[in-house]
Order: sequence, then C-alpha cells, then structure tokens
Amino acid sequence: MNPSSSLLAFARIFALSILLALGVRAHAQTDPLPSWNDGPAKQAIVAFMQTTTDQSSMKFVPPAERIATFDQDGTLWVEHPMYSFVMYALERVPALAKAKPELAKVEPFKTVLSRNREAMAKLTLRDLEKIIAATFTGMSVDQFNAEVANWITTAKDPRFDRLYTELVYQPMLEVLSYLRENGYKTYIVTGGGQDFVRVYSERVYGIPPEQVVGTAGVVKYGYRKDGTPFLTKEPKLLLNDNDAGKPEGIHLMIGRRPYAAFGNSTGDQQMLEYTGAGNGARLMMLVMHDDAKREYAYGPAQGLPKTKVGTLTQVLYDEAKAKGWIVISMKNDWNRIFSFEQ
Amino acid sequence: MNPSSSLLAFARIFALSILLALGVRAHAQTDPLPSWNDGPAKQAIVAFMQTTTDQSSMKFVPPAERIATFDQDGTLWVEHPMYSFVMYALERVPALAKAKPELAKVEPFKTVLSRNREAMAKLTLRDLEKIIAATFTGMSVDQFNAEVANWITTAKDPRFDRLYTELVYQPMLEVLSYLRENGYKTYIVTGGGQDFVRVYSERVYGIPPEQVVGTAGVVKYGYRKDGTPFLTKEPKLLLNDNDAGKPEGIHLMIGRRPYAAFGNSTGDQQMLEYTGAGNGARLMMLVMHDDAKREYAYGPAQGLPKTKVGTLTQVLYDEAKAKGWIVISMKNDWNRIFSFEQ
Repeated sequence: MNPSSSLLAFARIFALSILLALGVRAHAQTDPLPSWNDGPAKQAIVAFMQTTTDQSSMKFVPPAERIATFDQDGTLWVEHPMYSFVMYALERVPALAKAKPELAKVEPFKTVLSRNREAMAKLTLRDLEKIIAATFTGMSVDQFNAEVANWITTAKDPRFDRLYTELVYQPMLEVLSYLRENGYKTYIVTGGGQDFVRVYSERVYGIPPEQVVGTAGVVKYGYRKDGTPFLTKEPKLLLNDNDAGKPEGIHLMIGRRPYAAFGNSTGDQQMLEYTGAGNGARLMMLVMHDDAKREYAYGPAQGLPKTKVGTLTQVLYDEAKAKGWIVISMKNDWNRIFSFEQ
Repeated sequence: MNPSSSLLAFARIFALSILLALGVRAHAQTDPLPSWNDGPAKQAIVAFMQTTTDQSSMKFVPPAERIATFDQDGTLWVEHPMYSFVMYALERVPALAKAKPELAKVEPFKTVLSRNREAMAKLTLRDLEKIIAATFTGMSVDQFNAEVANWITTAKDPRFDRLYTELVYQPMLEVLSYLRENGYKTYIVTGGGQDFVRVYSERVYGIPPEQVVGTAGVVKYGYRKDGTPFLTKEPKLLLNDNDAGKPEGIHLMIGRRPYAAFGNSTGDQQMLEYTGAGNGARLMMLVMHDDAKREYAYGPAQGLPKTKVGTLTQVLYDEAKAKGWIVISMKNDWNRIFSFEQ
C-alpha cells in the first residue's frame, strides 16, 4: 500500500463516518407523529415521552412500569353511527335465526330480521343487550373467534365502504408505535367485548390479545364427548369495562396504574382520573370528534346535552380543562385521519 | 507493512477467530438448567424448547404465541405446612383485631388470637375463608399492597427459618429464565390471591404483575373526601383461580392457550388438560413432592388418599402417565432445591 492509496482509504473512511453520523442524526429527527399538526396535543405527547424516558429526569419512569391504555371505539377507530361490535351483533342475527328458528318469531330478533331501518332505529338499549347476549354467548370460544374473524375481514362500514379495520385513526397508530418504541406496553381498555377485540387487535393495532382488557363474560370449562376440553361463553357478565369498570378492569388485568391514558367519552372518565391520580408525569388525552367532513362531529363543540352518555360531554370537557387533560381536536390536530387518505 | 508483519497480523486474526468461535460454542453449551439432573424431565424441557424455537421445525411456535403458565404454591415455592397466603392471613389477625376490637370476641378470630396451636389446627376451611376475607378485603388496594410488602420481607417460615421468598425452587427459577431467554412470556396462574402474589412476583420470579393470574375479588372505584380516586377490595369473589378456574382465568387474562404449563396438584389438572389439548408441541409437567429430607414428601409416593384435593393424587398421577405429562421427582430430578443450599 503506498502513501497515496492509504490517504485515499482514510478519506473514504472519514467520508463514511460523516455520512453515518448524519444518517443517525437524520434518523433521530424523523418525526414519530407525522399525521399530527404542531400544536399543544402533539407537544404534550412528545414532552411526556421525553420526560418519562430521560434517565436524568425527575419524572423518569422505569421501563417495567411503562403502561399506556387506550379506549377503542371513538379513540382508536370510528364508533359512529354505531359501535362495530353492535354492528357485528346485528349482522349475526340472520345466521343465528337459521341455527335457532324459534328466534325469528320473538323480539327483538324479529325486528332485526325485518331489515326495516325505521323499526330497527327504535330498538332500545335493553333490546341491543339481548341481541349482544345471543350473538356473543352460548357457543365455544373457538366458534366465536372464528365467526368474528370471518366478519371482521369482510364486513364494511356503509359510509366509507371500507372494512372496519381500515377505519382506525392513523395519528393514534403513530402514538401507539411511538409509545412502544419508547418501551411502553400499550393496552386497549374497551367497553366493547374483550374476546371480540382480541381477534384482530394484534394485526390492526400491534396489541396482542393479552393486552386487551374489555367487557368480559364468564367462560366455562367443560369436555366434549371425546374428552377434549373446551371453553363455553356463558351469558353472564364478569366485567363491565365502562366508566368505573375501566380502572377496576385495569387493576384486575394489569395491576399497575397507567402513565398515559387515551379516551373520548364519559366511559373513559374514571380511567383518566385514575391515571391522573398517580405520581410523576402522567398523560391524559381525550379525542374530540369535531370533523364532520372527514369523520363525524359530536360532543361539546356541537352543543350536545350536558350529560349524554358515551360522548365527550360538556361536563367531561370541563373536567378535562380543569385537570390539565389534553383535548385532541380531530379537525385541527390531525392532518390525516385515515391511512387511505391522500 | 512487510510480508512477515502481515503474516503475523493474519495469524493473530486467525487465532482470534478461533477463540471467538470457541467462545460462542462454549456459551451455547452452558447448561441452562444446572440444578436439574439428567433424566426424562430435564430432557423433556430441553427438547420442547428446541422444537418450538427452531424455525425449521414442524412444531415451531411464533414468538408472539409463546406463553408458559406456572402454578405457584408447591410448583414454584414451598406450600407446606400451609400456603403462604394463609400464613399471611393468620398473622394479620392481631393487627386486624387491634383496628376492629369487636373481632377479638368472635370466632374464628378468637381462636387465632389465642395462639393455641391445637385449637388452630381444628379451624375449618370455612373458618379460613372468613379469615382470608377479613384480611384480604375491606381496605384500599394501596393499603393491602403495603401490608403484604411489609409481611413478605419480614415473615419467616418456621422450619427453614427463611423468608418465604427464599423458599422458591431453584430448578424452577432456571426453567423460568430458560423459557424467557427463548422468547416465552412466563405467567403465574395461582389459586392464591392475585393481588398478594403481584406484590413480590417481579422481584422473586422476574414475572411482572400483569403476568400474574390468580384468585381475584371485586375491586370498587371510589373517591376520597379530597376527590382523589382509589380502589377498594370488596369481599366478593370474581375469579376462583383453581381447578376449572385456571383455564377460565387464562382465557380471561391472557386469551391464548399456553404451550407449556407447570403444576403440582389437582388444582392444576384442568390447566394442564387445556394446555395439552392444543396443537403442536406442548409441555405439561407436575412437580411431585417426594423429598422429605430436603423439602416435604406428600402425594402418590406416600400413598395418600386417592382423591385428596390440593396434592398430586394417584388419580392425577395416572392421568399424567396416560397423557404423556412429565412428573418431576424433586428427589431424583433436582440436584439442588433452594438457592441457599450448597
């Protein structure tokens, strides 16, 4: 090797080092939340992440304790005009009536089978509970899972003409990834059926079944005729994972208080309160549906009744403001709502 | 650089490569289960691990599905002469009677306070349930956790004169680590109190609270006078995580069927059956307590009644043999039981 070739080699290595250094810096500066506009919501998420993962911070959170919980309906995906699990229940009724013809003659199943939209709109909460009980229980866990897996990969939302799993909010998927990249375990804590959400949670949200907490019924262990054990879904509620049931469910299933919690309605109030009551840095956020054009508009911006259950009421909005929770405006904070938008 | 120095450099690199290769091989050959004697039990564990983590194996298990469940009492630590959580309940009675003096006058608390061993030995299961209910509920989750944390770091087992947490089985700690190193999520699935075990599970077993499934009561969300939310432990059972309750609890809390399950008694029968009913490679093991000298001897080897609950009965032993479950002989399979042995 002569001196000039040695110098050339050195220059090459030097240039490579600089490129590598630039590359690392460029990577570090990649925006983890590209679908978020700059503003207080995005800033709050970034600040929380920096504070809780910086070892020199007073509010550093040890990796083992990094838990973040997310409501699903209205927080991670579209919940209007009806929760997807209710759509599932309604759309399962014909198959159910085929298997049990006696159901076709009794309400509320008769109305659902009539496909009369006007009559269906008058179904009460009690009616819906009956339909959910009939379609979510009385079968083996395996059978239920197979039925949901089939529905979720074929059924479409009428307005968007998309699979329900395409109607997840891109900005929230980015928050989930950003949290996980920073060592947070992400959980769904949903009022919807736990077994229902577990069918697709890993594929859609990157959240494994064991990190889905939801409304759960009793399952019963038994044996088939050949001695094979199996679990049956019984029509008996074990955990109503709404309202106070959310922190109760978090204690049962996780056993740690979250450091971050995301919701969008009165059903999430207690989860956010419980999260906020912990020491150190805590992040509480509520998604406000104020974008009628790209998604839907409902909640305080639309002057809904003060106490309407299942939305971001004025009362909840006021609590959020008083307690320093961040209200996310879909309209202003999100430059993209769905991944299929361009 | 002259040819001889170049040759020297080559020789150095060659030698280094050999050392590195040897190092890698030496590392690969480090026994992950040093407290296990060679024999069918150890071989079954190693074979299971190789089969399920080898991508070319027909029985390869994707990392996300790698779940292993462990009973605690009698499987991970000593359960004789009484479960530790029952010892806790009994030893909490004096403090409880101090706070609620009326308890001192009623049974079974009166007997416990008498410290009369003969009378205490006659306490019925119903009596114990009352004592457990009184010491495990009726207080905030935080208060309970603090009380258990204090007890578990001070109370000692009378025979061994050691903290209960020192009486964990070294061979099982090795299995837990070996599984985790191979991408398995390890869970405790215990008939003991879920909240109780969660207090020390991470420190003692490396198992975080969210991976402890146990007998659980209802908790109730409420507010202190200053508005701070808190959870109260109610005297109402939610999940009896014994027998059929184990697979039911696994479904509720994990939502996946385990690939490996470890137990020691009739309380674990259904968990092992449920695990074994899955496809592919599954590992089911039962710890048999047959070492009166180093630990205790009870179970089929000692000719106990065929149906005695809470032990490895002859009936369970026969089911294990019929189904290819592995029975671990503490006496023969373990060269060391506790880490403090030398």
